[in-house]
Amino acid sequence: MVYSREALIEAVSTQMPAKRWKHTLGVMESSIQLAEQYGADPERAETAAILHDVAKYWPVERMKEIIEQNHLNLNLLKHDKQLWHSEVGAFVAEQDYGITDPDILNAIRFHTSGREDMSLLEKIVCLADYIEPGRDFPGVDKIRKLAKESLEEGLVAGFDSTISLLLEKRRVIFPLTVLARNDLVRILEDKI
Amino acid sequence: MVYSREALIEAVSTQMPAKRWKHTLGVMESSIQLAEQYGADPERAETAAILHDVAKYWPVERMKEIIEQNHLNLNLLKHDKQLWHSEVGAFVAEQDYGITDPDILNAIRFHTSGREDMSLLEKIVCLADYIEPGRDFPGVDKIRKLAKESLEEGLVAGFDSTISLLLEKRRVIFPLTVLARNDLVRILEDKI
Repeated sequence: MVYSREALIEAVSTQMPAKRWKHTLGVMESSIQLAEQYGADPERAETAAILHDVAKYWPVERMKEIIEQNHLNLNLLKHDKQLWHSEVGAFVAEQDYGITDPDILNAIRFHTSGREDMSLLEKIVCLADYIEPGRDFPGVDKIRKLAKESLEEGLVAGFDSTISLLLEKRRVIFPLTVLARNDLVRILEDKI
Repeated sequence: MVYSREALIEAVSTQMPAKRWKHTLGVMESSIQLAEQYGADPERAETAAILHDVAKYWPVERMKEIIEQNHLNLNLLKHDKQLWHSEVGAFVAEQDYGITDPDILNAIRFHTSGREDMSLLEKIVCLADYIEPGRDFPGVDKIRKLAKESLEEGLVAGFDSTISLLLEKRRVIFPLTVLARNDLVRILEDKI
């Protein structure tokens, strides 16, 4: 079944508390803005944004089951549970909401971790998730400012803030995020 | 040819400027202390320490050649040149100085990057390289203090300082260092 925009919003918004849906509305807004600025399709950016946190409030056991039973990225199960909803979200977007565009699915799948060789759409949704208007964490204004100048600069600052926080809290750092950040640092070096 | 301790010191000390040899003397001292405290063999710790920077001042082109011609870890060539001397050092220790003990060779090989599942000797030489008496960088005293309580705590603080510095300077982070740090963070979590 393919959902209209309104039906998708109606269906996804009931999967999470009102506060998280407000965050999703912010990611939709920022994704559209970034898409317009950087030459991506705003509609596809919005669709990915609507769905990016669809599984965020699902029970951990249900996410684990979906990852195991469908042979998704099992490596995630060894890492922070905060990473699971992105992988599950992409699966649910395809299975339950009829999304077939691989770029939209990957923008959902990698919106938390990032990865090497991120597509334009992946960068947009990942960065929008950092800077949407409701976000308020140390350094967010610097990331917002950089996002206006360069997607890559904004994302490096976003990933750096995540890695610094994990160092500070002595939590495991997801290696893919370091690879994503290294990749962008190299891209920016080559531009100089 | 197998070198006596004195002949090894004589031969290795001529491979680097006096200042770096002073650093090596510090790593020897700290390695012996840590080995005595944490139940490793002080002689093997000292041998690894003597040799750990043997290739540090070799020309970059020579290091690159050795890595390529001997099919060592080619992945290093895509990363910071600062990492090459450890791999080359282990090779040279075996080829030129007759070291056959794989634990000593790995303590040389991984003294800069660390790795997952580090042996006791690898941890000692890597940590000694951070805390030897001549080191003076922001946070070194905290690492020295932690090193007295726990090898793993000291090393996590050491790796954290390296990763923070690379974030700050916007340089590529070597993924193996993140894996080494994650592994130690997990070990410490399990101890609680």
